[in-house]
Amino acid sequence: MDDVSRPSAFRFLKLTIGYDGTAFAGWQEQPGLRTVQNELASAWRRITGETPRLTASGRTDAGVHALGQVVSLCTSSERPEGELARGLNAVLPEDIVVLAIDPAVQGFHATHDALSKTYRYQIHDSRTPPLFDRRYVWHVRQPLDIERMGRAGGGLIGRHDFVSFQTAGSQRTSTVRTILAVEVTRLASRVDITVTGDGFLYNMVRAIAGTLVEVGRGARDPEWVAEALSARDRAAAGPNAPALGLVLVSVRYAQGSDE
Amino acid sequence: MDDVSRPSAFRFLKLTIGYDGTAFAGWQEQPGLRTVQNELASAWRRITGETPRLTASGRTDAGVHALGQVVSLCTSSERPEGELARGLNAVLPEDIVVLAIDPAVQGFHATHDALSKTYRYQIHDSRTPPLFDRRYVWHVRQPLDIERMGRAGGGLIGRHDFVSFQTAGSQRTSTVRTILAVEVTRLASRVDITVTGDGFLYNMVRAIAGTLVEVGRGARDPEWVAEALSARDRAAAGPNAPALGLVLVSVRYAQGSDE
Repeated sequence: MDDVSRPSAFRFLKLTIGYDGTAFAGWQEQPGLRTVQNELASAWRRITGETPRLTASGRTDAGVHALGQVVSLCTSSERPEGELARGLNAVLPEDIVVLAIDPAVQGFHATHDALSKTYRYQIHDSRTPPLFDRRYVWHVRQPLDIERMGRAGGGLIGRHDFVSFQTAGSQRTSTVRTILAVEVTRLASRVDITVTGDGFLYNMVRAIAGTLVEVGRGARDPEWVAEALSARDRAAAGPNAPALGLVLVSVRYAQGSDE
Repeated sequence: MDDVSRPSAFRFLKLTIGYDGTAFAGWQEQPGLRTVQNELASAWRRITGETPRLTASGRTDAGVHALGQVVSLCTSSERPEGELARGLNAVLPEDIVVLAIDPAVQGFHATHDALSKTYRYQIHDSRTPPLFDRRYVWHVRQPLDIERMGRAGGGLIGRHDFVSFQTAGSQRTSTVRTILAVEVTRLASRVDITVTGDGFLYNMVRAIAGTLVEVGRGARDPEWVAEALSARDRAAAGPNAPALGLVLVSVRYAQGSDE
């Protein structure tokens, strides 16, 4: 425990965490609901005595997973980072894991300082249902053509108005974002859509995944995706893929607080 | 459904199934317990009306998983195999999956006709706990040296009396088995021990895994494993690794009922 009698300077930390979103009502603290922020804050309180102000790179929705969510926090604890990580993992529930704690620059803010994020949307495309990864994949019964999906995804790369891929109701002022990369890969019945961008609108990756699946199963042509984008109309693109297949893989920061 | 008014010949089928052993009291039917055999039999009854006699390649214990368990059965149903597989998957709980149904030779018996089996023992060797695969790996906090483990495993290959790697209490008459291959591989924090043999004694793979981990973490030398084997004494080898890391991967049969 910290020696509270000795005055100590505050320092900024960067936590990299993973979580299985299945049993969470998302990241964001909400009264009466089990959220990642709630669990992480109470674990921090247990090991340091501090009530932390935790800021994530972005809120993830109910059911969405993370392998590299980044959380910033300011602490007066002087315990070494590795010891804090082990202490948190010892008290956290098994569906949250602290992967790393690193020192961050003064004022580090996980949301504002993020340069880009990578999400992976995971699909199981077989008539046979998924087994060990059933909580982490969207089960699509038709076989998907990943070459077509990759071509369609290429049409999203660049700086565009992504309003066709946004669920209405968010308070974001601009719907322009830059998609840096879209990759579609397969390993046996597992198809992954990996999307990197400087930021994402509400449900944007799920809308992209739902749209690419329409192309992959042959219901639409690859060119349709670029058309849906330029239509600037949510109804022009495909449906949102379900939350359980979505994983926040990593967040990139500028030098000094880089992953 | 079958046309019961028309007399039909019986035929033998080979079912290849996977299951997540977490919530099962093992394969074997037991009154009042949730077992794989119970669930599969009731699914078969639901889709065909028949009460099947199901025989697995071997019983798996509570908590043990399967990716390629083989089950034989004799049926009068004339429905095509693919249709039966889809019908079963539609009614089975999500922790059992039928991967394939193939025609088998007359009299096919999944236990007696098995030539060899391959098991995989899955370990996560990191101070950071496992996340998405936490139900399917043994969490070992010390780093494992897989080169040492592989060398130690090599000492088990061949035809030997494996009584040192058997939990007492089984009714097997001979404790001599042939181990065909032992491989230890790593992908990031995941270490897999893959063992193929013509048959396995009770808890034998878990005893092998527990023993190889002693070597991998440096508590014992690789040569100790061969010594433990020749001691013919359960106390000479390492402890049983926990059930949750064990997966029955595949079962090999002679031509005519081959995988």
